[in-house]
Amino acid sequence: MSLLVTGSIAIDTVASPYGRAENVLGGSAVYFSFAASQYVPVRLVGVVGEDFPESFRRTLASRDIDLRGLEVRKGSKTFRWSGRFEGAMNEAETVEVDLNVLAERGPKVPEVFADSQTVFLANTHPTLQRDLLSQLRSPKLIVCDTMNLWITTERDSLVETLRVVTGVIVNDGEARQLTGRMNLMEAGESILAMGPKFVIIKKGEHGALLLTPDGPAAVPAFPMKTVHDPTGAGDSFAGGCLGYLSAQGRTDFDTLRHALVRGTVAASFVIEDFSVRRVEKLTRTEIDQRVKQFVRMLRFE
Amino acid sequence: MSLLVTGSIAIDTVASPYGRAENVLGGSAVYFSFAASQYVPVRLVGVVGEDFPESFRRTLASRDIDLRGLEVRKGSKTFRWSGRFEGAMNEAETVEVDLNVLAERGPKVPEVFADSQTVFLANTHPTLQRDLLSQLRSPKLIVCDTMNLWITTERDSLVETLRVVTGVIVNDGEARQLTGRMNLMEAGESILAMGPKFVIIKKGEHGALLLTPDGPAAVPAFPMKTVHDPTGAGDSFAGGCLGYLSAQGRTDFDTLRHALVRGTVAASFVIEDFSVRRVEKLTRTEIDQRVKQFVRMLRFE
Repeated sequence: MSLLVTGSIAIDTVASPYGRAENVLGGSAVYFSFAASQYVPVRLVGVVGEDFPESFRRTLASRDIDLRGLEVRKGSKTFRWSGRFEGAMNEAETVEVDLNVLAERGPKVPEVFADSQTVFLANTHPTLQRDLLSQLRSPKLIVCDTMNLWITTERDSLVETLRVVTGVIVNDGEARQLTGRMNLMEAGESILAMGPKFVIIKKGEHGALLLTPDGPAAVPAFPMKTVHDPTGAGDSFAGGCLGYLSAQGRTDFDTLRHALVRGTVAASFVIEDFSVRRVEKLTRTEIDQRVKQFVRMLRFE
Repeated sequence: MSLLVTGSIAIDTVASPYGRAENVLGGSAVYFSFAASQYVPVRLVGVVGEDFPESFRRTLASRDIDLRGLEVRKGSKTFRWSGRFEGAMNEAETVEVDLNVLAERGPKVPEVFADSQTVFLANTHPTLQRDLLSQLRSPKLIVCDTMNLWITTERDSLVETLRVVTGVIVNDGEARQLTGRMNLMEAGESILAMGPKFVIIKKGEHGALLLTPDGPAAVPAFPMKTVHDPTGAGDSFAGGCLGYLSAQGRTDFDTLRHALVRGTVAASFVIEDFSVRRVEKLTRTEIDQRVKQFVRMLRFE
């Protein structure tokens, strides 16, 4: 199934105990696209400014990522994010954010993408998420992410979005904040009750949890010693999941469980180096090998 | 292999969002014993005071737990702990502690237990751990726990204990504190370098991590909606692990991985209710069924 993603495309500056990367390619839609394009061609929809480096465009184009939905807006500047990881590196501390073009009107879906079957609505204003959705003819599998800001300030609109999506991929803090439930199983089931057919809760270094009407499933993270930059881990996770689901063309419980594995492995690669350095040349063979290792680690017979 | 455990035997008072239990049976060695005795007979070594209720003794004796090493000390009072769980219930807040008999001299290993092959040294002063060990003739598999207090105040003695044990079961915070490493893989490998042949890091609701020279393994926790009292989860985890390892009589990488599963399932039962209410009548059939569910959840082929 054709896969469309919309979300941020960023110029990032990131510091961690392992170094610093200045003005590098980032953004939720970017990380998602690298991970998902390992399974199916990805249609990227987003807006950047005139300052978006030509080299970033080439890096994206070097993978199976269709850039006809990438608008370079005259007179605007690209979204910039600067963050820092410390200690256990579980959460980024935001040092600076310049919304720039993200504070302007949202991107348009090009007509050639209107037939997209799978859609990932990365974190953005929930009204924009529905607006983008309305430009598609008949999406079959719609998955969204969100963030604490919208849970607090745009709750009604977010609930509206949750009513129309097939699935949700959020982190543990967001699931708890959205539902007021501390137990993640209960939080996930509360989100299911809002409409989605499945909920995936990401827990960073602690793995992920799947909630469906057919029951729960959990996976650990891939045990990693080399964690140099966790930026994009969550979006890469979503990309691995959705790329796999889109390639399979179904979302039954067992396929969703396997999607968790694909998401886990996608995240494990991106954190090995800053920005997209590790994943821009990543091969499907490397991915499949790590999936095999992970599956073997979790086989108990 | 015969399994001996030494650790605290307590009278607990615990409050959680699901209720409150006053003056109930608790303690690290108690939780460990219930879990481990599902696999092999357990020899319990510990001290209580004259106030230790006869009903608690009967509850312990109702399982395969040998109480010939349980000293009831005249004129002394049993260790008491009172704690509270709130929010995500990941950590107990200690409300009150009365060390009582635990502040006096340690327990003695009865001569009939001196041939024990597997030993679990639950959290206590590291010098006491070695003292207990010295009373055994030729233990084959020695595993210890510890806590933040000893890491801070008795580091040299703890390092001495780590040099003589086969394995370590600690939680993530302790592993980080002991090694100064934030990445848990690195923390585990640092502990391996101190002597033990394996390290198991417990992460509460997030599962567990195994580090060995043959490589790492990770498992999630069993997804649980009913978590009424997490007290004893870590010690039950250790009991499930060690009971299983003792029954198997080996500690190769694959057996250790399976031990993680047994520990995970042991912990999942004890948290369903306060004190030992859920586990005092628990059957091996119930355990094996949940193990089967867990293994199925983690099978990806």
